[in-house]
Amino acid sequence: MVPRILIVGELVWAQEDCQKLLGDIAEVITYESSDRDTFVKELEPGGKYEGIVGIYRDNTSAQNIGIFDKELVNVLPSSLKWIAHNGAGYDQIDVLACKARGIFVSNTPGAVDDASATTALYLLISTMRNYSIAERSLREGKWKPAVAPISHDLEGRTLAILGLGGIGMRLAQLAHAFPMRIIYHSRHKNLNAPEWCEYFEDVEEMLAQADVLSVHVPLREETVGLVGEEWIRKLPKGAIIINTARGKIIDEEAMIRALEDGHLASIGLDVYPNEPEVNPRLLEFPYITLLPHMGTENQDSQRKMEVRALTNLRDFLTTGRGWDIVTEMKDL
Amino acid sequence: MVPRILIVGELVWAQEDCQKLLGDIAEVITYESSDRDTFVKELEPGGKYEGIVGIYRDNTSAQNIGIFDKELVNVLPSSLKWIAHNGAGYDQIDVLACKARGIFVSNTPGAVDDASATTALYLLISTMRNYSIAERSLREGKWKPAVAPISHDLEGRTLAILGLGGIGMRLAQLAHAFPMRIIYHSRHKNLNAPEWCEYFEDVEEMLAQADVLSVHVPLREETVGLVGEEWIRKLPKGAIIINTARGKIIDEEAMIRALEDGHLASIGLDVYPNEPEVNPRLLEFPYITLLPHMGTENQDSQRKMEVRALTNLRDFLTTGRGWDIVTEMKDL
Repeated sequence: MVPRILIVGELVWAQEDCQKLLGDIAEVITYESSDRDTFVKELEPGGKYEGIVGIYRDNTSAQNIGIFDKELVNVLPSSLKWIAHNGAGYDQIDVLACKARGIFVSNTPGAVDDASATTALYLLISTMRNYSIAERSLREGKWKPAVAPISHDLEGRTLAILGLGGIGMRLAQLAHAFPMRIIYHSRHKNLNAPEWCEYFEDVEEMLAQADVLSVHVPLREETVGLVGEEWIRKLPKGAIIINTARGKIIDEEAMIRALEDGHLASIGLDVYPNEPEVNPRLLEFPYITLLPHMGTENQDSQRKMEVRALTNLRDFLTTGRGWDIVTEMKDL
Repeated sequence: MVPRILIVGELVWAQEDCQKLLGDIAEVITYESSDRDTFVKELEPGGKYEGIVGIYRDNTSAQNIGIFDKELVNVLPSSLKWIAHNGAGYDQIDVLACKARGIFVSNTPGAVDDASATTALYLLISTMRNYSIAERSLREGKWKPAVAPISHDLEGRTLAILGLGGIGMRLAQLAHAFPMRIIYHSRHKNLNAPEWCEYFEDVEEMLAQADVLSVHVPLREETVGLVGEEWIRKLPKGAIIINTARGKIIDEEAMIRALEDGHLASIGLDVYPNEPEVNPRLLEFPYITLLPHMGTENQDSQRKMEVRALTNLRDFLTTGRGWDIVTEMKDL
């Protein structure tokens, strides 16, 4: 029997790649369930998706069937062995529930590094140079605003990277070209980091030296609100925070207070705690830059991510294991 | 007698530096003329500015007394030997008229390289990744636009640099970090360029290979409209043009036609033919990025430029010659 693979989401850019990667070794079907109950019913014996061994999943599916929380994971069929998630962040999947049921989860880490780091660099330039307010000023017919006391060149300033994984490392390389001084804090020293990346075991010592803090840790239970009142106040007055990771990692209220009282000069955000909602109070700060989660939003990266997720399914089918297995399951 | 130096414009960030650089060796006076006639009168014997030997000049002065065209240059006092212009581009000064009268002109080339190249990189990222339309979409309460077929990662794409001087070279370094492939055309091969900068003697051969063209030549009589219909059509369909040099170097009508018929995917502009006017037709293209001449608009670069212009005056006073003498006078 040909193994069945279910696409839970949408292949937009890699339809042809899917045919090449899985066409000969699997039957690929695409989910059409409009809500969770229907989805669960169709997974049952006799249902449309009966006997699937692998799932390709992206975040668009949450709109119809919700996230892969414990409730959903626990009713996935016992035939299912692999969920290939499209994305670096996999906070929409309860991986521990998957692990308990022996379902492997992979993500697409490397595929998003370039695009996400570029988004962070863009926010860094935009906030330091006040380009967002400048473009709005031009488009309102007012030419340019006065040079603000918070506008600076990047050269020689210090960028603190919280979490030096793939995306943080790419940002380090791009910012070092200016050059900026690069300092970082991770749970462990990154042994692949070049010498000019200075490791700080003590996060507060790092924060005290930062002109800009860029956040690159994954969203987990223990990282919710990680950048809160205490850490924000350890930054020097006039610092900037960039977030392209996940909105909930920063305590939004604490950040807004620090903007209001001038402790923070600016912020550049690509992510928000309750997307697609954006806290309307953010729109009141003229100097900040706000992108609508554009991290990997371009056709090159979208295709790379789709191909990488599909490749994890292909490797699972042909070798029993995909390459990008998530951290929590590396010991399985 | 202490030599007199006239500030024609405004020292904003380097007041203290001015005291340190010129306080002991010159009398520094600041112009207050509201129009050209008054200015010329005050330069005459018995006038407020009598006997000045050096002028510090910036472009803000054009609002009051106009640019330093032939008419103005020809009535400058014979005591005047040096004009230290604040800015890389000195198209507001008729340097040949100055040369004929034995008045030296200096600009501030290196001081603006970092800031201007950063502006070009920002426009490059913004146009390739559609960030301008994305931020406007968020601020209109509409979250993100659909991934556009013209959105791309920078990695592996080809950046063509027209004019590999200080600013072009800095941009090359920043874009090479992604990496992008860097190709360039200048009147002469830049012997200081690293090997990964590929020189094209034939500009059309370079254009044919460009995903993005970034303009970095000075505005001179022979560069007005240099990037016109013919060159634009040599670019591949879907290319992007970035201009942080001067608006008049590009034939704006030809560029708009190419946007309208889809030959160009996007443009990123910091400069316009008749600043501060912006052609309203530009505002109709949703995917382009438009900055109001922010090239060096930040306090670090503004101060660097003021200091560099003042240093040229100091060197003139103490050694007879400033370092940044403009190209047209290097043989004097």
